[in-house]
Amino acid sequence: MRQRRPARAVNAIPQPSFGQRPRPYDPIRVISDDQVEAIHQAALKLLAEQGMRVLNARAIDHFRRAGARVDGSMVYLDPGFVTERLATVPRTFTIAARNRAKDLRFGGNDMVFSTVGGPAYAMDLDRGRRDGTLQDMQDFLRICQSLNVIQQESGGPLEPMDLPASTRHLDLYLSQITLLDKSWNLNALGTERTMDGLTMAAITMGWSLDDLARQPMMMGVINTNSPRQLDDPMSQGLMTLAEHGQVAIVTPFTLAGAMAPVSLAGALVLQHAEAMFGVCLTQIVRPGVPVMYGGFTSNVDMKTGAPAFGTPEYTKAAQASGQLARRIGVPFRSSNTTAANAIDAQAAYESLMSLWGCLMGGAHLIIHGAGWMHGGLTASFEKLILDAELLGMMQSYFKPIEVTEESLSLDAIAEAGVGGHFFGTAQTMAQYETAFHPPMLSNWDNFPTWLSKGSEEAPARANRIWKDLLANYEQPPLDPGILEELEAFVARRKAEGGAPTN
Amino acid sequence: MRQRRPARAVNAIPQPSFGQRPRPYDPIRVISDDQVEAIHQAALKLLAEQGMRVLNARAIDHFRRAGARVDGSMVYLDPGFVTERLATVPRTFTIAARNRAKDLRFGGNDMVFSTVGGPAYAMDLDRGRRDGTLQDMQDFLRICQSLNVIQQESGGPLEPMDLPASTRHLDLYLSQITLLDKSWNLNALGTERTMDGLTMAAITMGWSLDDLARQPMMMGVINTNSPRQLDDPMSQGLMTLAEHGQVAIVTPFTLAGAMAPVSLAGALVLQHAEAMFGVCLTQIVRPGVPVMYGGFTSNVDMKTGAPAFGTPEYTKAAQASGQLARRIGVPFRSSNTTAANAIDAQAAYESLMSLWGCLMGGAHLIIHGAGWMHGGLTASFEKLILDAELLGMMQSYFKPIEVTEESLSLDAIAEAGVGGHFFGTAQTMAQYETAFHPPMLSNWDNFPTWLSKGSEEAPARANRIWKDLLANYEQPPLDPGILEELEAFVARRKAEGGAPTN
Repeated sequence: MRQRRPARAVNAIPQPSFGQRPRPYDPIRVISDDQVEAIHQAALKLLAEQGMRVLNARAIDHFRRAGARVDGSMVYLDPGFVTERLATVPRTFTIAARNRAKDLRFGGNDMVFSTVGGPAYAMDLDRGRRDGTLQDMQDFLRICQSLNVIQQESGGPLEPMDLPASTRHLDLYLSQITLLDKSWNLNALGTERTMDGLTMAAITMGWSLDDLARQPMMMGVINTNSPRQLDDPMSQGLMTLAEHGQVAIVTPFTLAGAMAPVSLAGALVLQHAEAMFGVCLTQIVRPGVPVMYGGFTSNVDMKTGAPAFGTPEYTKAAQASGQLARRIGVPFRSSNTTAANAIDAQAAYESLMSLWGCLMGGAHLIIHGAGWMHGGLTASFEKLILDAELLGMMQSYFKPIEVTEESLSLDAIAEAGVGGHFFGTAQTMAQYETAFHPPMLSNWDNFPTWLSKGSEEAPARANRIWKDLLANYEQPPLDPGILEELEAFVARRKAEGGAPTN
Repeated sequence: MRQRRPARAVNAIPQPSFGQRPRPYDPIRVISDDQVEAIHQAALKLLAEQGMRVLNARAIDHFRRAGARVDGSMVYLDPGFVTERLATVPRTFTIAARNRAKDLRFGGNDMVFSTVGGPAYAMDLDRGRRDGTLQDMQDFLRICQSLNVIQQESGGPLEPMDLPASTRHLDLYLSQITLLDKSWNLNALGTERTMDGLTMAAITMGWSLDDLARQPMMMGVINTNSPRQLDDPMSQGLMTLAEHGQVAIVTPFTLAGAMAPVSLAGALVLQHAEAMFGVCLTQIVRPGVPVMYGGFTSNVDMKTGAPAFGTPEYTKAAQASGQLARRIGVPFRSSNTTAANAIDAQAAYESLMSLWGCLMGGAHLIIHGAGWMHGGLTASFEKLILDAELLGMMQSYFKPIEVTEESLSLDAIAEAGVGGHFFGTAQTMAQYETAFHPPMLSNWDNFPTWLSKGSEEAPARANRIWKDLLANYEQPPLDPGILEELEAFVARRKAEGGAPTN
């Protein structure tokens, strides 16, 4: 077990050092092994008897040539076929970052914390909610770079709506590469966006695409269209990633009561079937390519149909999803979610219910780990800080209690004496700087002191913190020759018109 | 496993029905069995070699006559002595409530959610923080009675500072008995307050004290003075409870870095030793009397010395405490804590970190389950509602995922069809009212709707909810003869001067 390194302060904001901390506790099991098997078998039956619709001819052809039964756009997979494909999935893999000291391990007891990906809106306390811009997106990336607890960026924190839809992914990738030295994900919506990401990643490292295939750097989220459909752009993205040895994160969006059965077990059957279906396609395209099992089962408010997140159902489903992913040996992706409209108690408790669900469910990647608001429509600067605090707390929770002759402290207890105090004991003096999790956002002043300092609540503190991090951001250096090559690539691809937009 | 009954609405505020829902998942184990044993053995060594100071002669005499080594006020217990006393502790017990349908089970996988006990201040959004009054205390009790997720009241939600200290416990008990039909706890600070509680409980049921001993109704918190001291009033309270067959909740307050070693393992050694010491005394006084092991290990902010709660250290310590309590077979009490100054994100995440710590640590009683603010100094009306929501969410999390032929939903999935919707399926129509946790406090409106309704954040919603519950409170009926007898007892005890106040 690696020891937690001492916290260090960036401009007086306490932060842990960058680095993964493995989960030292067994995941929570919310269903029995028999129940896992029942869901798995029902999902296999679903794939064999009801099948999936695929809206891309090349993907259908892949399935047909691999021996699946195809009827028009419907694809049916036998249990034996699925089992055989799942057998080639690697249980662990690594993802390279531009700064190789920030490479990431996936699988086993390792976890990766990533930022929100995909919102259309930006939000902060000063300016409210608004369409995202390039400036917002870049500022968000700068703060992600500055937050050590964030280990990966997740495919664009928000859409820069001030840029053309066909080429904004190129500006995104260039921003991710230049503003971060951490791992970043691409937008897998169609072949062009995916290939542009792969090409720019390879340029960044001075690698060929073959080099990239030997050491994957790129991941992309592939959503199925629940129920039972894989659309054209997502098929393209999945195949392009797999062909080049990169990682598709196959994620059905199974909202129980809407796009999935109202029964949680049924929603999990549908999620499991669709995830396995996508995973199988990656292994047909390139056997042995790393791939992830995404779980995103939540529920709707049955009174209004509104999606709900961070609910008790979400928590249970995340933990059951971890059990299902482990059943088939595929690394597991989950998310930090909330439907809250403000940076209030609800935002905190829904996000923390999500995090306990995914982290104690054995998730290997937490997408939307920080900054997700409004059910995923909005990237919030204050939520980014709140979530970084929650992730930091969970990381400290995963630091095992040290039980040694010294830490059992019989000498320190004798030294303090009956009714005495431990502030001055030798043990305290030696350990007080690193003994406990140093909070970034929490305020522990007593009430009169807090009042006298202006009664600042958590959102206002988060606002100060992200501004401080942004003001003190340092751009990681990049070789000028590589930057020139990247800029030339972006210019050429823009001139070519970028990617299709519908 | 009992099934969750359908939620019912009290004045449109969704609530579950009253009732315990057992934890269906294994507790989280944050330390290994070997580490549990190392802490247990170190605590036994501490009791044998360093001992505890006891400030009550009768308690010392109990220990001496039972065979412990006594030197002045210092008491030393051999490991064999401790093991023998622990052997008589019941692993499960029940506590009677005035409404016997609300009797409570302790031990095994059962949990009891109780309210905050003991603060000096009351707080709400309208009036801010202020000294507690009888009116505040009674209003708090009325809301506790109205919240179904609250199963027990915890010894007075706040001190009525407008009443004399010597007799206010009598007004408290009369309020608890008349305003609640749920289980309530007494104030165990000294013999008189304890006896007054026992006597009034017995009167309420028309029982003798012998009847009460056969079916316990009363619990009281007994805090040790960490490190290594049991004071006079707490000794009295513990012995009086035990003599009458009632339940002492022996709870060291081991703040790592202040009253306990800076090392979490050391703080747990001290907690475990002090808790075992108090538990032993109950079994000397009355072998076989039910008793609880209280864990309250947290840490201080090492920069300021301020106590911190709901920290990662608190969460780990709560789960390790559960392991230690199970090691010695004593039912386990933990708490829902926060140091936050407002009903903000921090209040929510610290409380939820506490609840995951204690509920997944196998706690059988969650004292301060709802309403605790400012590190225990304040009872907050809005925090009461926030915590009731958190407890309700955890209770729903503990509703097992049902895995049956029907719930696997292959028929519903076929009915919805490819790319279809589940709102209208037969399964959804049959289950939509009870499928998911109905939130009391969470708002799931989309952002424009939420804005148009006035941008109400969680504290404002909590404010409306407690006022609604209070306005619609219904006092549970009490036999007039019993009420008369209780009032006569209170009048007599007030005339006698009540209880000592220092």
